[in-house]
Amino acid sequence: MSAAQHPSTSAPAPDAPSGIAVVGAGYWGPNLVRNLSASPDWELLAVCDLDQERAREVAAGRPVQVTDSLDEVLAREDVAAVAIATPARTHHAIAVAALRAGKHVLVEKPLADSVEAGRAMVELARQQGLVLMADHTYCYTPAVEKIRELVAEGALGQILYVDSVRINLGLIQPDVDVFWDLAPHDLSVLDHVLPGGLRPLGVAAQGSDPVGAGRPCVGYLSLPLPGGAMAHVHVNWLSPTKIRQMVIGGSERTLVWDDLNPQQRISVYDRGVDLVQQSVDSADRRTASVSYRLGDTWSPALPEREALGAMVREFAASIRGERAPATDGEAGLRVLSVLEAAATSLRARGALVDVAILDRPLEIVR
Amino acid sequence: MSAAQHPSTSAPAPDAPSGIAVVGAGYWGPNLVRNLSASPDWELLAVCDLDQERAREVAAGRPVQVTDSLDEVLAREDVAAVAIATPARTHHAIAVAALRAGKHVLVEKPLADSVEAGRAMVELARQQGLVLMADHTYCYTPAVEKIRELVAEGALGQILYVDSVRINLGLIQPDVDVFWDLAPHDLSVLDHVLPGGLRPLGVAAQGSDPVGAGRPCVGYLSLPLPGGAMAHVHVNWLSPTKIRQMVIGGSERTLVWDDLNPQQRISVYDRGVDLVQQSVDSADRRTASVSYRLGDTWSPALPEREALGAMVREFAASIRGERAPATDGEAGLRVLSVLEAAATSLRARGALVDVAILDRPLEIVR
Amino acid sequence: MSAAQHPSTSAPAPDAPSGIAVVGAGYWGPNLVRNLSASPDWELLAVCDLDQERAREVAAGRPVQVTDSLDEVLAREDVAAVAIATPARTHHAIAVAALRAGKHVLVEKPLADSVEAGRAMVELARQQGLVLMADHTYCYTPAVEKIRELVAEGALGQILYVDSVRINLGLIQPDVDVFWDLAPHDLSVLDHVLPGGLRPLGVAAQGSDPVGAGRPCVGYLSLPLPGGAMAHVHVNWLSPTKIRQMVIGGSERTLVWDDLNPQQRISVYDRGVDLVQQSVDSADRRTASVSYRLGDTWSPALPEREALGAMVREFAASIRGERAPATDGEAGLRVLSVLEAAATSLRARGALVDVAILDRPLEIVR
Amino acid sequence: MSAAQHPSTSAPAPDAPSGIAVVGAGYWGPNLVRNLSASPDWELLAVCDLDQERAREVAAGRPVQVTDSLDEVLAREDVAAVAIATPARTHHAIAVAALRAGKHVLVEKPLADSVEAGRAMVELARQQGLVLMADHTYCYTPAVEKIRELVAEGALGQILYVDSVRINLGLIQPDVDVFWDLAPHDLSVLDHVLPGGLRPLGVAAQGSDPVGAGRPCVGYLSLPLPGGAMAHVHVNWLSPTKIRQMVIGGSERTLVWDDLNPQQRISVYDRGVDLVQQSVDSADRRTASVSYRLGDTWSPALPEREALGAMVREFAASIRGERAPATDGEAGLRVLSVLEAAATSLRARGALVDVAILDRPLEIVR
Repeated sequence: MSAAQHPSTSAPAPDAPSGIAVVGAGYWGPNLVRNLSASPDWELLAVCDLDQERAREVAAGRPVQVTDSLDEVLAREDVAAVAIATPARTHHAIAVAALRAGKHVLVEKPLADSVEAGRAMVELARQQGLVLMADHTYCYTPAVEKIRELVAEGALGQILYVDSVRINLGLIQPDVDVFWDLAPHDLSVLDHVLPGGLRPLGVAAQGSDPVGAGRPCVGYLSLPLPGGAMAHVHVNWLSPTKIRQMVIGGSERTLVWDDLNPQQRISVYDRGVDLVQQSVDSADRRTASVSYRLGDTWSPALPEREALGAMVREFAASIRGERAPATDGEAGLRVLSVLEAAATSLRARGALVDVAILDRPLEIVR
Repeated sequence: MSAAQHPSTSAPAPDAPSGIAVVGAGYWGPNLVRNLSASPDWELLAVCDLDQERAREVAAGRPVQVTDSLDEVLAREDVAAVAIATPARTHHAIAVAALRAGKHVLVEKPLADSVEAGRAMVELARQQGLVLMADHTYCYTPAVEKIRELVAEGALGQILYVDSVRINLGLIQPDVDVFWDLAPHDLSVLDHVLPGGLRPLGVAAQGSDPVGAGRPCVGYLSLPLPGGAMAHVHVNWLSPTKIRQMVIGGSERTLVWDDLNPQQRISVYDRGVDLVQQSVDSADRRTASVSYRLGDTWSPALPEREALGAMVREFAASIRGERAPATDGEAGLRVLSVLEAAATSLRARGALVDVAILDRPLEIVR
Repeated sequence: MSAAQHPSTSAPAPDAPSGIAVVGAGYWGPNLVRNLSASPDWELLAVCDLDQERAREVAAGRPVQVTDSLDEVLAREDVAAVAIATPARTHHAIAVAALRAGKHVLVEKPLADSVEAGRAMVELARQQGLVLMADHTYCYTPAVEKIRELVAEGALGQILYVDSVRINLGLIQPDVDVFWDLAPHDLSVLDHVLPGGLRPLGVAAQGSDPVGAGRPCVGYLSLPLPGGAMAHVHVNWLSPTKIRQMVIGGSERTLVWDDLNPQQRISVYDRGVDLVQQSVDSADRRTASVSYRLGDTWSPALPEREALGAMVREFAASIRGERAPATDGEAGLRVLSVLEAAATSLRARGALVDVAILDRPLEIVR
Repeated sequence: MSAAQHPSTSAPAPDAPSGIAVVGAGYWGPNLVRNLSASPDWELLAVCDLDQERAREVAAGRPVQVTDSLDEVLAREDVAAVAIATPARTHHAIAVAALRAGKHVLVEKPLADSVEAGRAMVELARQQGLVLMADHTYCYTPAVEKIRELVAEGALGQILYVDSVRINLGLIQPDVDVFWDLAPHDLSVLDHVLPGGLRPLGVAAQGSDPVGAGRPCVGYLSLPLPGGAMAHVHVNWLSPTKIRQMVIGGSERTLVWDDLNPQQRISVYDRGVDLVQQSVDSADRRTASVSYRLGDTWSPALPEREALGAMVREFAASIRGERAPATDGEAGLRVLSVLEAAATSLRARGALVDVAILDRPLEIVR
């Protein structure tokens, strides 16, 4: 299936529900449990966490196995798939075990804690012929699906710049910085809506830790894109005002996604600047003559539905259709590559760093 | 007068008005003409522009000399001061001529088109014992004066980060990029409100020219500040939505300045994150325990008055008081130094560049 | 306990939970079931609805009696109280039966479908020495509690006007008009925050039914208050933009409650108009000399908590404390009186109608 | 020219400018002076005010006659038209004198201080074959012209309701109440955009004077319209928050005009409620089955131009075209009739009052 046909809107599969287990009953696990239980595509069979008390709470009286043994879960034949919602540093080991046991795997973002680990997961899934899907939840919101559609059909023209801001008073995480905590949301959306996915020419990162937390709490990413465009991401744990806004400037129209304005989440401005001509004047300065368009604004109606519901449906559909999901392991890997390059750039005081993984062929994992 | 006593609020001088000439009748000149004419501190004597037709229009029937000869203007004994509103690349020559003729000088932002030129102006003014003032107009708005006051009295605590956004559909300038066109506003405000002025540890700049204008139209500046804070500036000519917002995050409170919201330009949030303790855990990870405050929001009433009126009053007061104006030549030079470092960083693909001028003693100009 | 001591903030009762039954499993019933189940003050014993299927769904696996027989519920000795969430026209019969069976009663708004029915309920509760409480949920939100507190402590000064707007695209109800559907929210809040409760000098109502629904879909209420103030309510089922805003203008300050702005629900403006003097001029016109204050704006922090939880706690506390709840039957009756007067005004083409019930002593019901 | 062809967009007249005099140099006069001076259609010849000092200031060095004698102005043959910007109670006498002297007349809103006076002006102009125009400035803003166009072309469907709010901290006028001060704006816009003009079936007014100013400072108007719709206007001098918003609900779409949001002044919501069917059920209640549409929002681009410029152009065009202006004396009279009926309703405690003038033929004035 081509990327242009967005799989999540495909017809519901007629098949019987597949068995699935959730591994990890922390912050995100309960959401997966709730949505998988409510889905006609899935039969939730087990909840697995080292903290069995916590797992029992999350299972909440549902007729499912509660266990602290991953092996037990993977040994069940009726478990066709595993959804992993544990800390990022454990994703690789659990996913590899599950894939080796022949299970399809859904992994909470970020895909892993290193590109190397992520590559291994992607490659193993390919070898085994199993689905590896990244839970890039935002990509399944009606707003992002509409943005992807508008970009794909050329409504914005050529992308000129993307500016994404995600700031609020957030929990300072014990083991990840603000880039690894918040930026995967912005990066996964970029990967989903940019034609061809997120393939920046480099990454420059600036971060600061003004409260002495031991890791950046305020961060900026600059991502030069092919064709002269630039994407920029601002993530911040220390802002008392909450902003979740992405501006996508295009040669034809500009789109603003304000996720905190339910009455007008997406605005499309039929405005912009046209470069009329360009010349080199006598003083040897290059000058541009531009014209401005001031057109209408349009805000599409969006359906109200939960993104996670669409996400678990897509996981089921991709397994049945024997195709890659809309946010497959490689999408997760592209996001991971940018995060890792950002970490390198931070250590290099903000120098532009290559995102090497994107150009190298994937190696075989043994 | 110490910097802490903000001079623009001083009592009106009892003296007779001083004579002044405006040089440059382009975009900004008419505003200077209007405000100097209305000021009890000044008597506007001349408007000078190579385009005499344009100068006559701007003089608009006022009983002033209209001329295309700078020499004539500088030769007048009743002209005590000169206000320069010509293109930046001509500031140095005009200012040097005026200072040599014994005139006080007010210069439109940016102070000059290079740090070297700016340093020469600052040093010459010092030698001559004359006032050299940068027209950093925003610093004289009621909003910025209030911000400076709140920062100075410690209402925000220690500054943790500053994020400034100035974007709209703007004219693509024929000879300057978006940094030189828009960022002087943000940088001059930062210089005015940060204790000790704008003295970043370095500058990293990212810019892009997605429409092929020949110079950056979208730009980002990262400015690490002493003490672990970071200032960041986003300037953009291509955005159909207009945003002029600065967030100053402090250890005690956070301030948001939304210049396009006349009903609530400044909001002070009594919210933040407190670092309670910090330790190194068994896995050798540094962890922070934080608590969150969710307090009231407060928005101070601001008087309605024109910034330019306060600016020309400050110019007069500094001359009479034989003191530096609130936005003196050195303030202009600090802004210029950041702009020049940003240009260097751009050529270095975003590498962090030192702002050397800030540490070197000023040389004598001959 | 006096009305000034707001009971819902009293210390949690140390007693064992009391048994309660919910009657009515329609739109509102599930919310009561959920909150009563979660409350340490209550033990939910039964859910009663003529549609037993629906009742079973709402009980949702909780260990409670599911029945279509009110008599069975009222016969249980362990049921100390009944919460009624049936259509308004049935409130009177169910409440009277419950009160006669010695049960405390909580009734969804509006208290009844006529003042006469409501009076009978209030009087019977008084005779029986039982608590009759109106479920005016909005009165238990942190925002309204803060407003009540600010008004009570005189922060706003004397109330000059109240303007309340509650409009959105709403379900056209089959048996009530927009006044009876939406205005009870505004009126119960007014009753809660105005000193002495809602006691208007009259009611004038204007309504229209432009879509031919058979009852007003757009409505306006004008309520002259003692002392020259006026309250006004705009309710509308046909507006595609959603507004829930109440402005309370006071002689000292003005408060704006914007319930759809979670980041700044309440704003208090220290602004207003002061009548300085007043005279009769030569042309025999009365003139007023006024001055304007332009002061700061302040937005108090509000805790995040569910209003219904506080409401069911208050029901328990009033029973244990043998006192009237904050929103007692008489509060419900005052709201009902205004609604009934509004209906009379509508028939009289908007004429100002007395709210007679407020001055008459309650009669004994037999 | 039919009403559907909006005259203000007609081609500029090729004729020479006509002479005009401004009578009244108070609050509004300077705006007329400025716009008439700048207009190619007009030659400003005189400024007339009893306070000659004030008239001189307003003339501001322009080569025009400054006088306190209306007779002198009317005696000039080169004065073809008079623009009246004096207090409303003097409009009638000045307009009658000007019309009798054969001058076309433009009158600031409201047309006069009574319907009787206004009728006399309208009728005299008709007899004399002269243009009498009401300066309903808002009708010439790009926003209102767009609203009129959308309503006329049926984009909103049938008008269901109009809700207009115009509140801020305003000057308490010495001789008029808040209705006469602010409501002419809303009423003139209604008259301009409603098909057939503003012809309510009655007027009900509620006002209050909570500060003891001697006249209403807060006011509400309800205007039942033919076909079951209702218009409502809220005017308020005492609100510290400024709102200027009009919602026009239609059967097809709903339009919101937010005059204080320059970035999105007009929003058109393709949303609404459709009455699907209607029946009388067994309990003899009329029930309606409705469906809701949730469509896109659209915000048209509006040109930036000053309304007063378009207004004075229309005055010239109507004289040259020997046709009624878009806001003619009868439009002014319809607004006046509503204001007078509102005053009557206020005295009748809000009773619905007929707007008799609208149905009676105009009498001949002698």
